[in-house]
Amino acid sequence: MLIRTFVISLLSLGSIFVPAIALAADEPIQPIKEVKPKNPDMVELGKMLFFDPRLSKSGFISCNSCHNLSMGGTDNLQTSIGHKWQQGPINSPTVLNSSMNLAQFWDGRAKDLKEQAGGPIANPKEMAFTHELTVSVLSSIPQYQARFKKLFVTDKIDMGMVTTAIAAFEETLVTPDSRFDKWLKGDKQALSQTELEGYKLFKESGCTGCHNGAAVGGGSFQKFGIFETYKTMNKAEGRFAVTGNDDDRFVFKVPTLRNVELTYPYFHDGAVETLEEAVDTMGRIELSRKFTKEENAKIVAFLKSLTGKQPELTLPILPPSTKGTPKPKPFE
Amino acid sequence: MLIRTFVISLLSLGSIFVPAIALAADEPIQPIKEVKPKNPDMVELGKMLFFDPRLSKSGFISCNSCHNLSMGGTDNLQTSIGHKWQQGPINSPTVLNSSMNLAQFWDGRAKDLKEQAGGPIANPKEMAFTHELTVSVLSSIPQYQARFKKLFVTDKIDMGMVTTAIAAFEETLVTPDSRFDKWLKGDKQALSQTELEGYKLFKESGCTGCHNGAAVGGGSFQKFGIFETYKTMNKAEGRFAVTGNDDDRFVFKVPTLRNVELTYPYFHDGAVETLEEAVDTMGRIELSRKFTKEENAKIVAFLKSLTGKQPELTLPILPPSTKGTPKPKPFE
Repeated sequence: MLIRTFVISLLSLGSIFVPAIALAADEPIQPIKEVKPKNPDMVELGKMLFFDPRLSKSGFISCNSCHNLSMGGTDNLQTSIGHKWQQGPINSPTVLNSSMNLAQFWDGRAKDLKEQAGGPIANPKEMAFTHELTVSVLSSIPQYQARFKKLFVTDKIDMGMVTTAIAAFEETLVTPDSRFDKWLKGDKQALSQTELEGYKLFKESGCTGCHNGAAVGGGSFQKFGIFETYKTMNKAEGRFAVTGNDDDRFVFKVPTLRNVELTYPYFHDGAVETLEEAVDTMGRIELSRKFTKEENAKIVAFLKSLTGKQPELTLPILPPSTKGTPKPKPFE
Repeated sequence: MLIRTFVISLLSLGSIFVPAIALAADEPIQPIKEVKPKNPDMVELGKMLFFDPRLSKSGFISCNSCHNLSMGGTDNLQTSIGHKWQQGPINSPTVLNSSMNLAQFWDGRAKDLKEQAGGPIANPKEMAFTHELTVSVLSSIPQYQARFKKLFVTDKIDMGMVTTAIAAFEETLVTPDSRFDKWLKGDKQALSQTELEGYKLFKESGCTGCHNGAAVGGGSFQKFGIFETYKTMNKAEGRFAVTGNDDDRFVFKVPTLRNVELTYPYFHDGAVETLEEAVDTMGRIELSRKFTKEENAKIVAFLKSLTGKQPELTLPILPPSTKGTPKPKPFE
């Protein structure tokens, strides 16, 4: 009797869990895994640096200005605002789940988050600072000095340490537990019928050809405008800027669709405000498919189920500057 | 015997604690009290609004941009950066402990935090938005709508509700438990000999004539430049702008000295970078006293003991805009 009950229990468990696991493995999208930081002190230092506007010439712009963690890791602007209110050339991609990208920036010119992190700091149109001054600022502040010393066992801060710490923080910025992920993991109640139909359409139409994996994108470079040229005022030419190869014109990194409800406006030029229009455009120019209004609504409903648990962050308290700290120069 | 022990115990207790309590009451500075929010939901809404850049025309500037809670509630700039990188007319005062001020802004033109909060939003040199658009933005976002409805029991958001919520959040931004407050409460080890001597000098020289109370300032308007004219390029004339009274020229609200180590640069023109220089100037122009280098160092040491426990805040997650949300116009 005991044995029989045990067997039945196993079978009933099986009927709930086994197909769910099998299902997730068969799907083109995988759930996002929680990240347990290997080195919490490194992550904390990276968070401080991410929020510190003293990494800009003006003392006003931090990483968080354009990758705002209150707003899906973006600034929700068409293109970003840089030093002296310069208009950025391209839409700021989300920092959320960005560790899953095959490379960083829309054109993939940085191989990873560490390489990316140094870019905007020294870009005259963005934070307009220099790596030398970044190191001088941090070296002049005893509390930063002590943190770097503890982590890197040296008295001499360098830019490699700065970007290592920022990247370590960014690697923790993942968004698990979206309703879609709950569904993937077997909770069949997590999605509505409309959302499920949207997902089915998303797969069958070929969207998952590029938007796949845990990040639902970020895994490949693709031509933007396969069946139809994408009309834009934006001058970015994508991978061509990196490779010089004519075939790479208008080839961009496929953006993640995780939290896409929060990361408007859309595309590298940030020209599209709504998911409805983004889905319509993608169908037309990438798949040569005109979605009906009903199909469009279903796909949009599915996309909104990709909003995950946003990182819960305690605002860092930054140590004060000292007499030796290079002063911000906002109006020079 | 029991009675005798009891009496002795009381006496020994007295020798430790009674003078401490008496001391705090006799001092011109009182400890900051912790704030227990009366309405946590109101505070949470206020925090969201404080961090939401959609309360600016550009969608880029929030209250936290210039009153950065990672940096002592200031931007640590001489004068702030506003819409389209306009240079602000005056140094941004800290939002920390600002509920204790007798009025808000350097010239006290707003009677309280609620009245203050609407100012920068609509100031064309700061957030450059309008109150009408603020209400339209918030009304277009269902999650904001629901929060206002729950708190104000109405479907119609108005600016009074917005500023009520922001003020409620700001009232929680107090910084208790500084080393100086621990000393005031009886922990005689909390201050070093130098800091104590600095405090003695601070009192005896007359600094506490204006810098007193729990906020060590904020309780009165005073002429800036009593014994000597303060030389500045800054055009602000203080209370005169509010009252039109000639006697009010260069009369400003006395700033709080709580967390003054974090709120550099100093004075309404933000022209002074170091506490040493600030103390020297204040001695000269307000007290006709030239502090020696040693005296100056002692007062500065005391001032640094006023840095309290900074508010520990979870970064708010802001709800996304909708199709009905007025779009930010950063470059118009």
